[in-house]
This record gives sequence, C-alpha cells and structure tokens, in this order.
Amino acid sequence: MTGERVQMGIMGLDKMLSGGLIQGSISVLIGTYGTGKTTFALQFLWQGLQSGENVIYISLEEREERIYLYMKQKGWDVEKYRNKALTVLRLDPSDFNISISSIKNELPLLTRQLKATRVVIDPISLFEDLFDSDAVRRQEMFRLIDRFRSEQCTILLTSETDRNNPYASRHSLIEYLADTVILLRYVRPSDLSDVHLALEVVKMRMSPHSREIKPYEIMTDQVHVYTEANVF
Amino acid sequence: MTGERVQMGIMGLDKMLSGGLIQGSISVLIGTYGTGKTTFALQFLWQGLQSGENVIYISLEEREERIYLYMKQKGWDVEKYRNKALTVLRLDPSDFNISISSIKNELPLLTRQLKATRVVIDPISLFEDLFDSDAVRRQEMFRLIDRFRSEQCTILLTSETDRNNPYASRHSLIEYLADTVILLRYVRPSDLSDVHLALEVVKMRMSPHSREIKPYEIMTDQVHVYTEANVF
Amino acid sequence: MTGERVQMGIMGLDKMLSGGLIQGSISVLIGTYGTGKTTFALQFLWQGLQSGENVIYISLEEREERIYLYMKQKGWDVEKYRNKALTVLRLDPSDFNISISSIKNELPLLTRQLKATRVVIDPISLFEDLFDSDAVRRQEMFRLIDRFRSEQCTILLTSETDRNNPYASRHSLIEYLADTVILLRYVRPSDLSDVHLALEVVKMRMSPHSREIKPYEIMTDQVHVYTEANVF
Amino acid sequence: MTGERVQMGIMGLDKMLSGGLIQGSISVLIGTYGTGKTTFALQFLWQGLQSGENVIYISLEEREERIYLYMKQKGWDVEKYRNKALTVLRLDPSDFNISISSIKNELPLLTRQLKATRVVIDPISLFEDLFDSDAVRRQEMFRLIDRFRSEQCTILLTSETDRNNPYASRHSLIEYLADTVILLRYVRPSDLSDVHLALEVVKMRMSPHSREIKPYEIMTDQVHVYTEANVF
Amino acid sequence: MTGERVQMGIMGLDKMLSGGLIQGSISVLIGTYGTGKTTFALQFLWQGLQSGENVIYISLEEREERIYLYMKQKGWDVEKYRNKALTVLRLDPSDFNISISSIKNELPLLTRQLKATRVVIDPISLFEDLFDSDAVRRQEMFRLIDRFRSEQCTILLTSETDRNNPYASRHSLIEYLADTVILLRYVRPSDLSDVHLALEVVKMRMSPHSREIKPYEIMTDQVHVYTEANVF
Amino acid sequence: MTGERVQMGIMGLDKMLSGGLIQGSISVLIGTYGTGKTTFALQFLWQGLQSGENVIYISLEEREERIYLYMKQKGWDVEKYRNKALTVLRLDPSDFNISISSIKNELPLLTRQLKATRVVIDPISLFEDLFDSDAVRRQEMFRLIDRFRSEQCTILLTSETDRNNPYASRHSLIEYLADTVILLRYVRPSDLSDVHLALEVVKMRMSPHSREIKPYEIMTDQVHVYTEANVF
Repeated sequence: MTGERVQMGIMGLDKMLSGGLIQGSISVLIGTYGTGKTTFALQFLWQGLQSGENVIYISLEEREERIYLYMKQKGWDVEKYRNKALTVLRLDPSDFNISISSIKNELPLLTRQLKATRVVIDPISLFEDLFDSDAVRRQEMFRLIDRFRSEQCTILLTSETDRNNPYASRHSLIEYLADTVILLRYVRPSDLSDVHLALEVVKMRMSPHSREIKPYEIMTDQVHVYTEANVF
Repeated sequence: MTGERVQMGIMGLDKMLSGGLIQGSISVLIGTYGTGKTTFALQFLWQGLQSGENVIYISLEEREERIYLYMKQKGWDVEKYRNKALTVLRLDPSDFNISISSIKNELPLLTRQLKATRVVIDPISLFEDLFDSDAVRRQEMFRLIDRFRSEQCTILLTSETDRNNPYASRHSLIEYLADTVILLRYVRPSDLSDVHLALEVVKMRMSPHSREIKPYEIMTDQVHVYTEANVF
Repeated sequence: MTGERVQMGIMGLDKMLSGGLIQGSISVLIGTYGTGKTTFALQFLWQGLQSGENVIYISLEEREERIYLYMKQKGWDVEKYRNKALTVLRLDPSDFNISISSIKNELPLLTRQLKATRVVIDPISLFEDLFDSDAVRRQEMFRLIDRFRSEQCTILLTSETDRNNPYASRHSLIEYLADTVILLRYVRPSDLSDVHLALEVVKMRMSPHSREIKPYEIMTDQVHVYTEANVF
Repeated sequence: MTGERVQMGIMGLDKMLSGGLIQGSISVLIGTYGTGKTTFALQFLWQGLQSGENVIYISLEEREERIYLYMKQKGWDVEKYRNKALTVLRLDPSDFNISISSIKNELPLLTRQLKATRVVIDPISLFEDLFDSDAVRRQEMFRLIDRFRSEQCTILLTSETDRNNPYASRHSLIEYLADTVILLRYVRPSDLSDVHLALEVVKMRMSPHSREIKPYEIMTDQVHVYTEANVF
Repeated sequence: MTGERVQMGIMGLDKMLSGGLIQGSISVLIGTYGTGKTTFALQFLWQGLQSGENVIYISLEEREERIYLYMKQKGWDVEKYRNKALTVLRLDPSDFNISISSIKNELPLLTRQLKATRVVIDPISLFEDLFDSDAVRRQEMFRLIDRFRSEQCTILLTSETDRNNPYASRHSLIEYLADTVILLRYVRPSDLSDVHLALEVVKMRMSPHSREIKPYEIMTDQVHVYTEANVF
Repeated sequence: MTGERVQMGIMGLDKMLSGGLIQGSISVLIGTYGTGKTTFALQFLWQGLQSGENVIYISLEEREERIYLYMKQKGWDVEKYRNKALTVLRLDPSDFNISISSIKNELPLLTRQLKATRVVIDPISLFEDLFDSDAVRRQEMFRLIDRFRSEQCTILLTSETDRNNPYASRHSLIEYLADTVILLRYVRPSDLSDVHLALEVVKMRMSPHSREIKPYEIMTDQVHVYTEANVF
C-alpha cells in the first residue's frame, strides 16, 4: 500500500474517502438488499476500465451473462473490454468449497497474470457462509485477505448486513479485517413518507476520512452521493 | 430480460415500478398474514389473462379449488380460462421434497410447454422451509431461480415475513436473490385508532423505482394503492 | 364457503367482520392470558345454540365440567342443551399424540354425525406443541385444517400469543393458515393508570373487514366491543 | 368453585378482585425479586388463620424456621397456630423430583386431612424448573393443578418473572393455567428519582375485576395498595 | 437473624438500609464492571475491623496480595489486622469444583473457628458458573447459602450483571436467594456529557428500606452515596 | 503496581486517567471496527519508545510488516527502533492454540528478557475465541493475565465489541479482568448528519478517574481527545 488513491468513480464518495480507496487496500461495502452494493462495485470496475486498467469481477451468485447485462443496461459499452481488460468470473460456492485451497492460490495468480489492478468479490458473505465455526471462518478469511493483499491491486468486497444490526455484516467479521468499510443503509423517516438511502465511511485504515452520513440515489447510469445535503 | 414492462394490474403499484415488473425478472412480495400477498399475486395473473397470456399459479399450501374460489369471489369469470390459459397447480411440499430435483426440471419445462408468461409461487417460504441448513437453502434457491430465469416469463413469489424483522423474509434470503422486492406491512399509529396497510418497493434491479411508502387497501375486487396519499 | 355469515353474537365484533364469520371458514383468536379468548369462543357457541344449531367445544386443557361451569356462571341455561345440541369434549393432548391420525379422521366424522355447524378448539396451540419441528407442525396443521374445511361448519380456534411478539401466535403459524385472524391484546397507557383491552381483525380472506382497533370489555354475561370509541 | 369470595386481607387488592379470590380457585402472584410475593402470600394465610381457617404453606426454598421468622417479624403471634391451624412444609425440589407422583397424591390428601382451606406454594417456578421440555411441564403442571382443584380450598402460587418480559412468568405457563393472575412489578420513572411498586389484576376467570394499575408499598406489618392513587 | 443492624460503613447507603444490613442476613451487590463492587465489599469489611470484629474475604479471582494492595491503596493500615482479625483467602474456582462438597463444610467451619462476623465472597458469579444446568446451580447455591446462614455472621456477595438486563445478575438467581439486593449501575444522560453511578436497594427481607435511586461516587478512600441528590 | 503513571501519549486521555495508566496494570480498549483501537495502542507504544523504554507489540491478526507500515504512515521514524527497543511479533492464533501453555510461559519470559515496560496484545478477543466454554475461557484468561501481571510492565489489550451491546466486549469477560477499561464507540445523532467518536473511562482500579464522555478524532499522526468539548 503506497498511499496512492484509486478513484471509485462515484463523485461524492471519492471525496468522502479523501480522494478514493487506497491502492492495494481491501475494502468492503456492507448493505442490505436493494442498497445498490453491486452497482457501486460495477462503477468501481468501470472507472478502472475507463482509465485503461485491467479488472476482475468475481461473482459468487449471478451468472456471467447477468453481470454483463447489468453493465450494458447502464449504457456502458462493455463488449469492447470483454475478456480483454474485463474478466467476469462466476464461482459456484459449492465447487468453491471443494477447491478452496487451490482458489486461494489461483485467484491471486490470476490477478497477477491478468495484471488486474481492481478486483471485486460479490458477495463475500457467500464465501464466509462456507465455514462451520466462527474461529475457522476468521482464520480462513484472514488468510484469503492476506494472500490477496500481497498483490498490487485494490480489492472491493460486498457483504450483506446482519439480520438484526444495520452496522454489522452477516458474520460480524469482514468489517474487522477490511481496511475500509463503507456502510449503505435505508433510513425511514418517522412520518413514513419515503425511504432514504444513506451512506457513511465507517473505517479507513491509514487515512483521514469523512465521518458524515450522506444521502445517495441510484440512477440508471450511476450513483449520486449528495455531499452537500443531509439525510433529513 | 429485455427491459420490457409487465403490468401487475394494480394501478398505483405499476406506476411505482416505473411501468410494471421487468419481463423475465423474478420478484417477491414480502408481508405478514393479512397483508394481501395472495390477492396481489392473483391480480398479477388476472392481468395476464386479460391480455391473452398464459399463466400458472403454483400453490404450496391451498388446494386448487380454494384458489379458484378466491378468484371467483372477486367477481372474475375464471371458468373460461381454467385449464386453458390458466393453470392452477398444488404442490404438497412433502412430496416436493422427494421430487425436488425433478421439479427443478419439470416446472421450467411445464412453463415452456404451456407457453406461460406469468408464474406465481405462493408462498415460496414453504419451499425454503424444506432445507436444513442456510447454506444448502441458499444454493438450492439460487439454482431454482436460475433455472426459472432461463424461461421467457415473469415470476412473482410471495414470502412470509421474519418473526422479528418486518423488513426481512422468513429466511432473510429471497430478498437477496430476487430482482424486485415489494414489502407489504402494517403500520399502527401511536393513538391506536386503526391499522394501515403500507407498501414500498425496496429493490428493483436494472430500473429506477419509487422510494415512497404508500398506503393501500384491499377491496373486494381489487387492490388500491394510494400514490397521492401518505401513510400518516 | 358460500360467503354466508355466521354471527359470533358479539355485537361490535360482528359488525367489524362485515356481518360475522364466513360460513365454513376457519378463524383464530390470538391473545395472551386474561384477554378473554375462551369467553369469545363460548359466546360464539352460545349464539349457535340460541339459533338452534348443533355445536362442539373441544377442550385441550380444561375438563368438561369446568367448561359447563363457565357457561352457567354467565347465567346461561346450558343444561337443556347438554349432550344434545351442545357437545363438550376434552382431549388430553398426550393421548392426542398417540391417536393423532385417528383424530384427524374422527373429529371431522363426529362433526358430521352431530351435524355440528360450529366447532371450537381451545387452545389449538396445545396441539401445535406436539410437533417437534416447524416443518412437520406446519404440514400436520395444514392437513388438520384441510380435513376440517371439507365439513359444512364454521370453526373457531384460540391460540396463545408469542412470548415476544404481541402480533404473532405461539408458533407463528396458525395466523397464516386461518382464514380470519382476530387479535386480542392489552394496551398499557404511558401514565400507567389502567390496562385497556383492544381488539382488531387483522385478516379476513374473501371479505372486506374493519381495520380499526377497538376497545372491549369482558362483562359477567357477555363481551362488549366499543365500536364507537377509541382505545385512547 | 361456588363463586364465594376469600379475602386476601390486603385491603385495596381485595377490592380490585371484587371482594377477594374466588373460593376453590387457583391464583398466581407473578413478580421479580423484591416485589413482596412471599409477603402477599403470608398475608393471605394470616387472614385465613384470623378467620379460624386451617392453612398450609408449602415452601420450595426457604426452611420452615425462616417462614415462621418472617411471620413473627411482622408482629404476628404465629406460635399459637403452629402445627395446629398453620402447617409449614418445606419440600426440597430435588426430593420432590423423585417423589413427584406420590406428592401429586399426598399433597391433595394432606390438604383434605388438615381440612385446609388456604394453601400457598412458594415459588411454583421451582417445581416447573424440574421438567425438561415445555410439553411435559405443561402436562404435569396442568395435572397438579387439576388434582388440587378437586379440593375445597383456595390456592395461591407465586412465580418469578421471565428474565426479558415483565408480563410473563419464568416459563410463560402458569399464567395460562391459573384462574387469577396478579402481576407485581417495579416501575422506574424517567427522572430516576425512585422505584415504584405497581400491581395489576391481569386475569380473573368467572369474575369481573379492576383493570387499574395501582401503586403499593410493603410495610413492616402489612401491604398497602393505594387504590385512590396512580403510579405516576 | 435477630434484626440487629450491621453497618456497611458507607454513610448514605446505611441510611437507605434503615441502619445497615441485618445481622445474619445474606446480601448481594449486583453491578457491571467498574461500578465498584469490590470497593463496597472491602468497605464493609473495614468497617467491621474498625469495630473490633473478625472478618473474612474470599476471593474467587484476585490473588491475596492484590486484595491487600487495594486496601492499602485506600490508605488503610491493614497490616496490623492481617491474618489476625482479617483473613483473605483465594479460592481457585477450578479447585473449588473438585472440593465443592468439602468447601461447603469447611468454609462455614472456618467462619466459626475464626469467629468471623462478616464474610465477603467476591464474585459469587464465578462459583455459579461451575454448574452446568440452571436446576443444579439453584440447588447448590441454595444449599451453600443455607449452610452459611446457620452461622452468626453477615454475608455480602458480589455478582456481575446479566449481559442484557441491568436489573438481573449473571444467572438471574442470586437476587432471588439473597435477603438483600443492592443494585449498582451506570446511567448515561441523553446529552452524553458524562456517566453517572446510581444505586438502589431493590430488596430487603424483613425490613422497610428506601426505594430511592441515588447517585454515588467512588473516591480514593471511600464511597459517597449522595442521598440528598437525584441522579438527574 | 506502585501507583506510578505511564503516559499513553494521548493528551486528553492521559488527563482523564489522572495522569496515565497505572504502571504494572492491565488495561483494555473496547471498540467496534473503525474506532481506532490499533491507533491508540500504537500511540501508547510510541510514547514509550520516545521515553527510551523497550516495548512489544503482539499482533494476533496483522503481519509484522503491516504494523510497521501503520507506524511509518503516521510519520514516525520506527526503523531506528526496529528489533531493538521495538519488537513486533505476530502470533497465528491457530499455532497459538497448540502452543498455548508454552506461550503462557514464553511471553512473560520474553517480556523480562527484552526488559519491556509496555506490551500490547491486539486483539485479545482472537485469543479468547480459542476456548470452547465460558468457564475455561475465564480461567485461562485469568491465568494469562495473572502471569503477565507478575512482570514489571504495563499491558494494553484491545477487544472487539459485543455484537449487540456497545458496552461489552465480545465475550463480556476481559472488562471484568482488566484493571482499566476504556470504551471507544460511535454516536450517531438523531438528525443523522454525521458520526461522532466518543470515549469514556469506564473502570480504573485503585485510582480516581474522569467519568466524562468525550469526543475524539483520529488524525493522520495522532489521536485528539477533546476534553473541553461535549459529544453533542
């Protein structure tokens, strides 16, 4: 980690991160369904593609075609990057289980071979689900992250929220391991008029960052973070 | 998914969905008992029948006759569609269990054979109950959905709410897998005068949608969503 | 279910139900201790007796004599109906367990033989307690209800409330299976002056119904629902 | 149960109970530590002794001498009743376990032999603790109560409160089985000036009763329920 | 228990206890970490030493030297009492487990031999942890207390608070067994300016007591309870 | 513990601690992800290095290089202390498990050999995770702490917060064992404008300390505690 910044390509958010994610760091987006985790992650990769970088999207759930569809639907011309600068890879978590140790070696290798500088794993919580005990999960997750960290690329993970605590991920683990934690959540005002989306940067190792809670909206082609506005 | 819209036939709701459900998408209605999940689902099928489409209702609980009764009771002339454009099928979840793999093949096949463009599974939570572990459930549910998604039809699932969290389904799973999530719930004002029904579109992949929370009522013959009103 | 109404004999409540329970439907009263579940159920049977109907009270807890005592204590002349139009039957849940399959056949048979048009099972939650897993309970409960439903009579069940959720029954199940759900509960005002009893009709399949929350009182001889008043 | 009233000897409370407990009924006092459950129970027996009745105190925890000490400390001349009109009996729950079936026979027998018209079991929750499953506990508790109920005496039980719900007993069971439920609890005002004791009659089978919540105090020699005052 | 008072040596608290703990009674201090449980307990023993009594401190956690250090640090001249009027004894709960029955005999014996009139066990919750089931724990705890109670000395226990309920001890047990319960806790005002320590006497068998909630502070040499002030 | 103070080097905090941590004491920092636990711990060691002391950082998660990176990134010239006055040691908790008893001996030995006067274990919660039962964990943790305490050095532990209780550590244990507890947490105002970091000293054995709740900020090179300001 050299301290250099990697822009996510989401205007207000890059500003809240004091310029972007730190190169070589590992970050996690935590949010419930419908908060736009995948949209944020795709924007992060698209920004890399625009800057001539090689990027990898590892999907633990959706098939490759769906991922391409999501990007096209945003009006992005992904075809020219497909299987060149852009690699989309679907891992079935059940096969993942069998090949768990080889993947810990192969994925970092792949990243090196493809000279990828941005990698997304969406959602990491499906990988975490594979472990039976909290202790084994923590150890394996730490090793995976440790292995990835030796690469020269910036990694963005997504995670579902804990069922009962909007500030914790599904296993209350990845937020402790990651360098940066961005929290996405719903806020329902007491008059129940509508639902707001709100974002905060909860943690960012080795960097100052904004502690503000900011509203955002998911548009057809991009995410808008309203850094000049307040949630209420 | 071509982005084309499939109207649910529920006026205000179609507007909140920017025109209707996306053709080929998979949606879920989450609500507690008495919020009208089955009524919404039947309306969605009826709208298809009116437009000359073939539709399937897969009931995991109620017997076929009861489903026809519900529709007749709304003043709909269902007999002329029965076993033609309208197929009602009851699956006993216990037999379901035995034939789980064949169903994953047969139901999609049936959908193709019947040229169905709208399918309802009511409630999907009974299917989810069959799996012992969260990991297996997630995998099997994802595969089922993946299998269905290859068909050219729009799918609407219903799910009971989690006992302790009005924003989560019974297993906190289907809302992550589905493309669209519509939440139905009760709101009791602090003066305890009466109970309101409120609806929100929490998630809609690949489409902008309303973030408003709107009151609705279940009438004898249809559902009214009051998009011009507020819950309180 | 023909849509015909069966009066419960509780003035305000019948009005909230748009005339009464639907003939042939299955309803449940959910409430904690002291909310008068048994009183409501007895009133429902008494109303039937007054109209010349045959009725059955299946007690899963109290002995037959106690049930007669409750009715007499209300000033009702039950002796002339005893073992004629009125059958009170105590089932010991432990024997119930052994004879579970025969009962599923015998009770519906008995209902037919006695030409009963109103049946109470008080409390159904004791029957639900017999099953080890949620999945088996749901299946068995659905079958029991399905079996009963083929009869021409209106059924009223009672259930205790979930320990932590005043809107759910003990097993969070029967409210999904029943056609009608009536919720009984306590409301304690913030100044702690006294305890109010409040009632709402949460669900009613195939019928419009009131969504109001209404105060009620249990008098020596009957239940009064104050439809003109508010809880606070 | 003839409907005749048995005074507890606690002025305001007897009034809230429309004259006292119903003769032959089974009642329970539910409260956390320090709410005076034992004091209420002893007062109930002392009132019986004063009226020339025979009474039994079954202690599941405290030794006999401690019970006598409590009564003497209130300034009551218990020695003249000791082992005559007043029987204090300590049951060790562990022996209880062994002799569980004999006790179900012997205690009712003892009650008859001693011509006792008032019996206290303090606390019944220790007896409930003996059973492994909720189903067995319910059955055994119902039978015990059923056995006692055949006697001509009025029974008062005490129970500890559920750890997380001030309106439920430790096992959420006895309040459903008992005819009368009196709830004792603490109320802490928001300014944290002091702790109030508050009492309510939540349930009373076959009798109207007050629904008011009333403050009370435990004095050296008796309990005062302030029926003219409010908690706040 | 003769009703005679044993001063704790904490001014305001003795007043709230109507003069002090009752001689021969068993009391418990319940509080989370940092509320000063050990400080209260040591003050109670020091008060006894000052009055010429023999006292025992049984530590289930800290080594003997640490206990002496705590006392010296308060400016108390403990050396002159060491191993004479003051006995400090560390029991390792794991050995405790092995020797559980002998200790139940030896500790009461020791108390008699040393003619101790004040005994502290700090914290009793570590002893409670040794038992696997709630039922066994209750029985064993009751017997231990029963055994101690036959001695002529006043006993003060300390217990950690339940993780989720500030009014309950770790096992929700000792507060039911003890004669006196003193609750220590934190109160954080809504403006989050600082943390207050607040104390209340929740239970006191055979004695009237204050029901007020009072602020206190832990000073270097003693505890101050501000009986003239309010928490807010 | 001589009562001498060891400055943490965090201005406001040392003042709240009446001068600093007590020499020879064991302290714990409890906080969720992103509250700066590691930053506080490193500052504590850096302060020691500046004063010519020998210090040890035991990392249960991060690799040695990362720890050095964190320090360099603060602008500290750590290289001149590396492997001289500053020892950074990574323990893999899984090996830790195997060598658990040897470590209990070796770490204290190492501390003596290196003449270290400040030791950090970050995070201690990973060590606590190794034990299966609460009872064993408590015993082992107590022994570890006991062993360390015999050394002449001041120890600072870090611990993650309990998922559901911001005032408890992950296992609700270390806060009872440690001499000093410093709580770090987030406070989100009701208008959701931004997130505040707040700090309080909850417990400090053998010393008066501030009970104030104070805001703090994590800057690039140090932590600022605003002792003159309030959280809101």
